[in-house]
Amino acid sequence: MQETALGAALKAAVQTMSKKKQTELIANYIYGKYEVFSRFKPLAIGIDKDLLSVLPQYDPVLVARVLANHCRRPRYIKALACGGKRFDLHGHFKGAVTAEEQAIAKAHPCMQSPVSSEEHPVQDLQANETEFIQESVQNSAVSESDQEA
Amino acid sequence: MQETALGAALKAAVQTMSKKKQTELIANYIYGKYEVFSRFKPLAIGIDKDLLSVLPQYDPVLVARVLANHCRRPRYIKALACGGKRFDLHGHFKGAVTAEEQAIAKAHPCMQSPVSSEEHPVQDLQANETEFIQESVQNSAVSESDQEA
Repeated sequence: MQETALGAALKAAVQTMSKKKQTELIANYIYGKYEVFSRFKPLAIGIDKDLLSVLPQYDPVLVARVLANHCRRPRYIKALACGGKRFDLHGHFKGAVTAEEQAIAKAHPCMQSPVSSEEHPVQDLQANETEFIQESVQNSAVSESDQEA
Repeated sequence: MQETALGAALKAAVQTMSKKKQTELIANYIYGKYEVFSRFKPLAIGIDKDLLSVLPQYDPVLVARVLANHCRRPRYIKALACGGKRFDLHGHFKGAVTAEEQAIAKAHPCMQSPVSSEEHPVQDLQANETEFIQESVQNSAVSESDQEA
């Protein structure tokens, strides 16, 4: 999308909203518009850039957060565990789930219990948002010693 | 490695061993020879094929099992959570951890507790082996309904 006068006005209006509200709007838009999200199909690598280009009025950090929240959800992990093709925003094949991604997903603790029906994914996201930010900060401080096994 | 008379004899000898013993030998070899494994660096996509070519005497299913066990270990998940480059058997850069892989690793439950020093990875693998097979069988039976969110 080109930066137009209308686009610039929209962007300015959006930026007056709280981050929580913006995140909610982004999630609503994505789950409402893209089946690859609402049906929890494996996402094409680079779909983050495609999303930024269709959501230029939002903070890229918040778009990335919605995407990260989506990828950590049990239903998405379950999709990766099944392996197969990945899909872009338009539902076209693009790449595939790797053996490593599939192995990690299959062994993920969330695969030990049945996934709930999750009829309200957006509400669920809001609840997890703060938790996710805390985890990110915590994990970025991890320094693993590289001792030989 | 070419299929030679010696190679064929070695393969025949290996196949008389139990699967457990073969898996142990494969893990010992991999952790002893390749720093990319013993130092738990992110593995290049396609490293499974490279491993098969250097271990032609072993059952490919068992090599894949050792690799899957490695990828699900907390120290490996932690490496993915840090992101960055991936490495091949020779320790050369090849590809990178994707944003999705990093997000899933960061949110993985094993990241909530400190990783133990894991000085004996091979013993650890043996203990997990049966469990991993059970999980694979269990997970392949998963059929997720594709209901709209």
